[in-house]
Amino acid sequence: MEELKERIIKEGQVIGSNILKVDRFLNHQIDPVFMQRIGKQFAKLFAPQNISKVITIESSGIAPAVMTGLALQVPVIFIRKKKPVTANEEVLVTDVYSFTKKVTNTIYIEKGLLTPDDRVLIIDDFLANGEASLGLVRLIELSGAKVAGIGIVVEKSFQEGRRRLDQAGYAVHSLARVASLEKGEVQFLD
Amino acid sequence: MEELKERIIKEGQVIGSNILKVDRFLNHQIDPVFMQRIGKQFAKLFAPQNISKVITIESSGIAPAVMTGLALQVPVIFIRKKKPVTANEEVLVTDVYSFTKKVTNTIYIEKGLLTPDDRVLIIDDFLANGEASLGLVRLIELSGAKVAGIGIVVEKSFQEGRRRLDQAGYAVHSLARVASLEKGEVQFLD
Repeated sequence: MEELKERIIKEGQVIGSNILKVDRFLNHQIDPVFMQRIGKQFAKLFAPQNISKVITIESSGIAPAVMTGLALQVPVIFIRKKKPVTANEEVLVTDVYSFTKKVTNTIYIEKGLLTPDDRVLIIDDFLANGEASLGLVRLIELSGAKVAGIGIVVEKSFQEGRRRLDQAGYAVHSLARVASLEKGEVQFLD
Repeated sequence: MEELKERIIKEGQVIGSNILKVDRFLNHQIDPVFMQRIGKQFAKLFAPQNISKVITIESSGIAPAVMTGLALQVPVIFIRKKKPVTANEEVLVTDVYSFTKKVTNTIYIEKGLLTPDDRVLIIDDFLANGEASLGLVRLIELSGAKVAGIGIVVEKSFQEGRRRLDQAGYAVHSLARVASLEKGEVQFLD
């Protein structure tokens, strides 16, 4: 997505050789009009997959996921990193390790929210090592539903996530693929 | 907002006399099409206020805030309960106590994201004791910006928040005002 690449170049900040900060339109401040275009793009890419639900993990995934759900006219589930007081006992859980934050979060979904008839699209803001996406995959599969695709706003292609998801056989579309952040510069694939 | 009241009655679950669980369209699963109508409603209510930015706190506030920002065509800032690794040192902070979870979270905003010219609309999913909204008010005022209004999806009018915000002189609009959750039943004001 050319517009996304341009905004990454213009507004992104590279920190070290691993971290790309895009908090002027995605991670702290959100541009909702741009997010709607991102949602429409995901909807177009995954239209043939008969998506029945979109799923994401809090918090930065929520805006692109909600806009994708709006474009596809399907519900959006967001997964929390902490079990809220309102959660009942009937939950499915899995652990997700964050390499960035060096913590393990237990994520959960209420039983019955996904059914074996569901074809679920995972949406996330970043793909790095793939831990978050693979955690969502486990929750979907524990629910008996089918993973119909994975849509990523910014993929850091120099980390392991994309390869892991490809090898596991999931259909991944990333709107921007970052080949390298070396020397403070963003290089894209292709 | 009649549609919201109807969905609360139809899909909400009352837990004890304090907690209203609406996680079929707002807090765990989101109905994005309905959220867009909610965003348009907030945009209409606050249109005379010349809003330049919308602000919310993660995570359940993000969907209604993004839809409000989309309708108003302004940026949306979401405030985190933890400082992420990508945050630089230049942040403004304040503490927010959660009565529900019995924890204090330090919330932060990057300096410069809001300026004295900004007229900021606070959007949140629930208003209970008002701690979250008052925390956002402090961050906005620390930034030198002006609080132009507060939009709440579900107000629990039997708790202290609404009175505290009214007394502090802020313009509050709640789309549903819950007078009581006693005996497992939702009663609305007016």
